Amino acid sequence: MRATVIHAPRDIRVEERDTPVLIEPTDAVVKVTASCVCGSDLWPYRGVRGTEQAHTIGHEFVGVVESVGAEVTDLAAGDFVIAPFTTNDGTCQACAHGMTSGCEHSSIFGGTTDAYGHPIGGAQSEYVRVPDAAATLVKVPGPVDDDLVPSLLTLSDVFSTGHHAAVSAEVGPGKTVVVVGDGAVGLSAVLAASRLGAERIIAMSRHADRQALAREFGATDIVETRGDEGIAAVRELLGGELADCALEAVGTAESMDQALRVVRPGGNVGYVGVPAGDPELPMPFLFAKNITVGGGMAPARAYIEELLPDVLSRTIEPGRVFDLELPLDQAAEAYAAMDERRAIKVLLRP
Amino acid sequence: MRATVIHAPRDIRVEERDTPVLIEPTDAVVKVTASCVCGSDLWPYRGVRGTEQAHTIGHEFVGVVESVGAEVTDLAAGDFVIAPFTTNDGTCQACAHGMTSGCEHSSIFGGTTDAYGHPIGGAQSEYVRVPDAAATLVKVPGPVDDDLVPSLLTLSDVFSTGHHAAVSAEVGPGKTVVVVGDGAVGLSAVLAASRLGAERIIAMSRHADRQALAREFGATDIVETRGDEGIAAVRELLGGELADCALEAVGTAESMDQALRVVRPGGNVGYVGVPAGDPELPMPFLFAKNITVGGGMAPARAYIEELLPDVLSRTIEPGRVFDLELPLDQAAEAYAAMDERRAIKVLLRP
Repeated sequence: MRATVIHAPRDIRVEERDTPVLIEPTDAVVKVTASCVCGSDLWPYRGVRGTEQAHTIGHEFVGVVESVGAEVTDLAAGDFVIAPFTTNDGTCQACAHGMTSGCEHSSIFGGTTDAYGHPIGGAQSEYVRVPDAAATLVKVPGPVDDDLVPSLLTLSDVFSTGHHAAVSAEVGPGKTVVVVGDGAVGLSAVLAASRLGAERIIAMSRHADRQALAREFGATDIVETRGDEGIAAVRELLGGELADCALEAVGTAESMDQALRVVRPGGNVGYVGVPAGDPELPMPFLFAKNITVGGGMAPARAYIEELLPDVLSRTIEPGRVFDLELPLDQAAEAYAAMDERRAIKVLLRP
Repeated sequence: MRATVIHAPRDIRVEERDTPVLIEPTDAVVKVTASCVCGSDLWPYRGVRGTEQAHTIGHEFVGVVESVGAEVTDLAAGDFVIAPFTTNDGTCQACAHGMTSGCEHSSIFGGTTDAYGHPIGGAQSEYVRVPDAAATLVKVPGPVDDDLVPSLLTLSDVFSTGHHAAVSAEVGPGKTVVVVGDGAVGLSAVLAASRLGAERIIAMSRHADRQALAREFGATDIVETRGDEGIAAVRELLGGELADCALEAVGTAESMDQALRVVRPGGNVGYVGVPAGDPELPMPFLFAKNITVGGGMAPARAYIEELLPDVLSRTIEPGRVFDLELPLDQAAEAYAAMDERRAIKVLLRP
């Protein structure tokens, strides 16, 4: 099969690899309908994170079940499924609490080994082997309209992650919310905050195209400035006050600092940006302002069932974050387009 | 009047000072019935925090109103009042959200200036001037039985702070809770967790007297070990699992690390220990485990109304954290007894 392989920074190739097969009786093999490039995939692409050895890449996909192991009884070949970006066993303490991304047997798709020691391939490929398939995959009642595929794909990671930021910051009716970051996750967080009933949603963005999508997703206001100027602009919009919630969707020390400083005493910061470098949170500041900080790697699996009906009913269209679709063979161009900010997020079709 | 003054590490003296008078029309002057020594008072006492200039000290007290300014209409001389350890104006955004300790005009009692530029004295004294008295002080319907004074005094800070740890960690029915720290705040956090309905409360303590009080306050289990051993002991008590909530009541990097590592993925840490030094929170760890961290300086004023009825009805007796009572003149001995761990918390009567 064809699979996207990262060899080194800026060296993305689509190559022939062995088609994955069932290893454990709890596995499934899925034929990928669509996958995409994540902002976090750009880290090894840009060399921010090293690539010691070439490996397949990508962790977001939807597809059709090709085969299942003997112990996977509620899925069958032909089922359309959404794969959350992390696998989960469905039985541990974390899974019992809906924190599926913290599962003790959690694995992330993309070129390393799974929790059972077997290789686990990337999602920017034609086929993917899924460990703990019964607990991990979510079946979508078919037939699935092709125009829904982009939005269904966002449940794999990006929209579930935006939702996680909003849930972690306790967004709800009447709340004022600032979203830091206008990438696909930040825009998804805007949509999630809107879906959860936030009263004001201020998107911090400097790019006209992203501002436009933010507004379509429910942003009530845009702030183009950052730092102290950005805080002053938020205060002006909120009648001199600070926000109840901030959603951090970047992962840098600067963006976290921005998020912490736009919320009022007793406010909440929900963060989902993968921490870049080794950032830490300033405790004396948090202590003095009583800011609650929550978030992390989204438990996408646990959220999919809540979010899926709104996608199927077309109440929300989170797939609009994809502003470019390419055939899998052009994966290298997909990375370049996102790296150069020519695209917000790129969907790949094998 | 007599007032406790800190001159330098381990140099505590009771001296004559001017009796405070009304300055602003929003002030009250309160005659102190009882005050006490806080764990955080031991920091300058031990030299962990510097004392550049001698100043009066103490921030917890209950007493009787002596006089009120022209704009303080709902308090009168003779009223018995509880003073939260921080003042608040009752009108700003933080106050509107019940985060009174984050009030933009917040002042802490004890030797510095208040938010309006006037000197504000310490509570380990005969009299205290209270800025923004109408919003700050809570009147207790009289007459007040003298045996209730210790428990009423805990609402000023220590029990409200323990309650804040529990609220910040989302303690509630069915939750498993670990309390890190067996000082007066940690013990208060045990009582608060019990009052909020926690299913299991594991107190980490090495001192027999504190273990005993923890059990009386509702601890179901005691763990004497710390670090990895402590985590293993918690797991053993919880059938191999980690806790839903941890309450951090010390403020050191070690205690925060302990709290972070005893909770399950998706769990909550509530912290109220005043951060010692300049500790930071490790974001990659929090991100991977989805631990929500909340807490800070307790909004005691906002909690007093919720907690007071349980004290007045004698449903709870948080004043049991006081295991030594001394006359104000022996303030130096009060500090020494707490410093040397001969007492958990010392009450002072002028």
